[in-house]
Amino acid sequence: MFFKIPTQVYLEENCVVKNGSLMKQYGQKALIVTGHSSAANGSLADLETALKENQIKYLVYDKTLANPPVEQVMEIQSAYRDEKIDFVIGLGGGSAMDLSKAVAVMLYYPEKGADFLYDPATENKSLPVVAIPTTCGTGSEVTAVSVLTRHDIETKAAITSRIYPALALLDGSYLKHCPQHIVNNTSIDAFGHLVESYINRKATAFSDMVTEEGFRTWSKVKETLLGEHFTAEDCQNLMLSANYAGMAIAHCGTSLPHGASYIVTYNTGIPHGKAVGYFQYGYLKCADPARVNRILELTGFASLEEMRDFIIRVCKIDRLDEELLEKCFKSLIGSSKLEVCPFDTSEETLRKVVYSL
Amino acid sequence: MFFKIPTQVYLEENCVVKNGSLMKQYGQKALIVTGHSSAANGSLADLETALKENQIKYLVYDKTLANPPVEQVMEIQSAYRDEKIDFVIGLGGGSAMDLSKAVAVMLYYPEKGADFLYDPATENKSLPVVAIPTTCGTGSEVTAVSVLTRHDIETKAAITSRIYPALALLDGSYLKHCPQHIVNNTSIDAFGHLVESYINRKATAFSDMVTEEGFRTWSKVKETLLGEHFTAEDCQNLMLSANYAGMAIAHCGTSLPHGASYIVTYNTGIPHGKAVGYFQYGYLKCADPARVNRILELTGFASLEEMRDFIIRVCKIDRLDEELLEKCFKSLIGSSKLEVCPFDTSEETLRKVVYSL
Repeated sequence: MFFKIPTQVYLEENCVVKNGSLMKQYGQKALIVTGHSSAANGSLADLETALKENQIKYLVYDKTLANPPVEQVMEIQSAYRDEKIDFVIGLGGGSAMDLSKAVAVMLYYPEKGADFLYDPATENKSLPVVAIPTTCGTGSEVTAVSVLTRHDIETKAAITSRIYPALALLDGSYLKHCPQHIVNNTSIDAFGHLVESYINRKATAFSDMVTEEGFRTWSKVKETLLGEHFTAEDCQNLMLSANYAGMAIAHCGTSLPHGASYIVTYNTGIPHGKAVGYFQYGYLKCADPARVNRILELTGFASLEEMRDFIIRVCKIDRLDEELLEKCFKSLIGSSKLEVCPFDTSEETLRKVVYSL
Repeated sequence: MFFKIPTQVYLEENCVVKNGSLMKQYGQKALIVTGHSSAANGSLADLETALKENQIKYLVYDKTLANPPVEQVMEIQSAYRDEKIDFVIGLGGGSAMDLSKAVAVMLYYPEKGADFLYDPATENKSLPVVAIPTTCGTGSEVTAVSVLTRHDIETKAAITSRIYPALALLDGSYLKHCPQHIVNNTSIDAFGHLVESYINRKATAFSDMVTEEGFRTWSKVKETLLGEHFTAEDCQNLMLSANYAGMAIAHCGTSLPHGASYIVTYNTGIPHGKAVGYFQYGYLKCADPARVNRILELTGFASLEEMRDFIIRVCKIDRLDEELLEKCFKSLIGSSKLEVCPFDTSEETLRKVVYSL
């Protein structure tokens, strides 16, 4: 078994300004890849303060799309390839961080085209990446994964290069300004990462340590997802549970629910976390009962059904139409997500996972 | 709070041969730093197989002393500085791994003298280090610390450079050939690392996760230390608990018991783990009872006294003479080990820690 967390992680209030000097080691000029909300939640202002205090020049790209497509990476490569960028800072949710990793690859190879992102002969090289999450789901700040939308195959897919951020700066206070439905959906994404890492062929004593601590931390704040008020401590715990969940998937990878969710999001625009939430119950129904019981124990749910109803309430989940579910089901057949699934993946079982709510 | 485990860790049977190809990334010529026992326990043969299979040239230095002195580092620098070594492999217990880190620094700076090892202006640079433990105590394979004997100040002290091994390869089977008293002593060293990381001013949710998992893993095998037979699973768990304990001290650093132990070992030659064992009871007697109770719960001891008697039995501990204890006590006054101690460190308390058995 194998353990590796190459990213240096800091979690504290005012984390970005306090630890800004760490960014100097990556160079003198940064490209910030972010969306519009980072201006509203205070994170962009903090980052600009940190960079200025440390005499690091920077440019801001703030047009990150939700579920960014390959085309957006190429647009950024073309706009910034002559700017002598030393490192890339992904500031935002999974979309911004995943985009920043792909951009860091394509600015390292300024002459390469879009095909290079999905070239199996990757060298896993890029400009250094600093990741600053402002949601509590993706865990992308500690994973090597960058998921982009691919219109050519009508789904989302991870690029081939494995790019771990060198540094992750986590400050729960950014969640205070995050709309409740985003906190809720992203935190169900984190829950999904924990479930799919725990019910996973690659799970080891190392990954279980991280995953179990993730469940414990998540369970401390889960009830707050039903309310409207998050304390500073809740916010740190939401951020931390997503981070543990990221460390977990960095070792195990995600499984069937994430695979199916990509089809849901691509076809309906339903946010990623909510899409992931649809399939957790079905996945757990097919899993080893001993492992499932341990999850229930760690998270404080009395039964799988209580967990299912909780997710439905937190993400305001409605039924998906049959045609879409059929697409999800078909996308799983022969998918790479089957490799880490520890139970039989006959078509009958895959149907059970997909058609569960 | 802060989390960083830059070392890539593998733990499995036949780990060294299975993962030998990973060493190719560090260069074409290695220096193996080891002691005599690696020839006996099969680890040196495994390592040579792995290097040959991957066309990596190597030289073997197998004269590592227990608690290696600075002079030994300089002797190796002088013997191998013209050999164009690309990376250093520390194979053995803490002595071999710690020595390999210091050697990796001095071969990176072949023109520097011994003073450089304790120069505060270190750049933390060295040749890459691969660490292969053959005991179950030090955790040096995942820490940045290299402790050497310093005859000039009559104790042991960590070098200034912080050198994390790039790769750690753990195979519990080497413990099968390890004399029982070494397994016992080193595994009490690991227990001490866990205790001193848990009762520590720098403890965080991140470090506690690792420390608690270390206690859980250690408790699975602690009873076997009283017997004479270790199964393959016991061996892997002994190795793993020491590894968790290493990750824990990599974040927190050791505290009073380790500080006092250096004086004991320097003056009497009592092995490190046993020397560390002397002071665990005294340290815990002064600590926050809530944290102490959690340790008892995780390790399955009914009381601190049961834990104390267990350590006495496992390490065959006798009383230390008063004069030596007085030296230990005096060495702690003003020591850097006080910085991480979370309780008051008045002379009265320090006496309590030292004079406890």
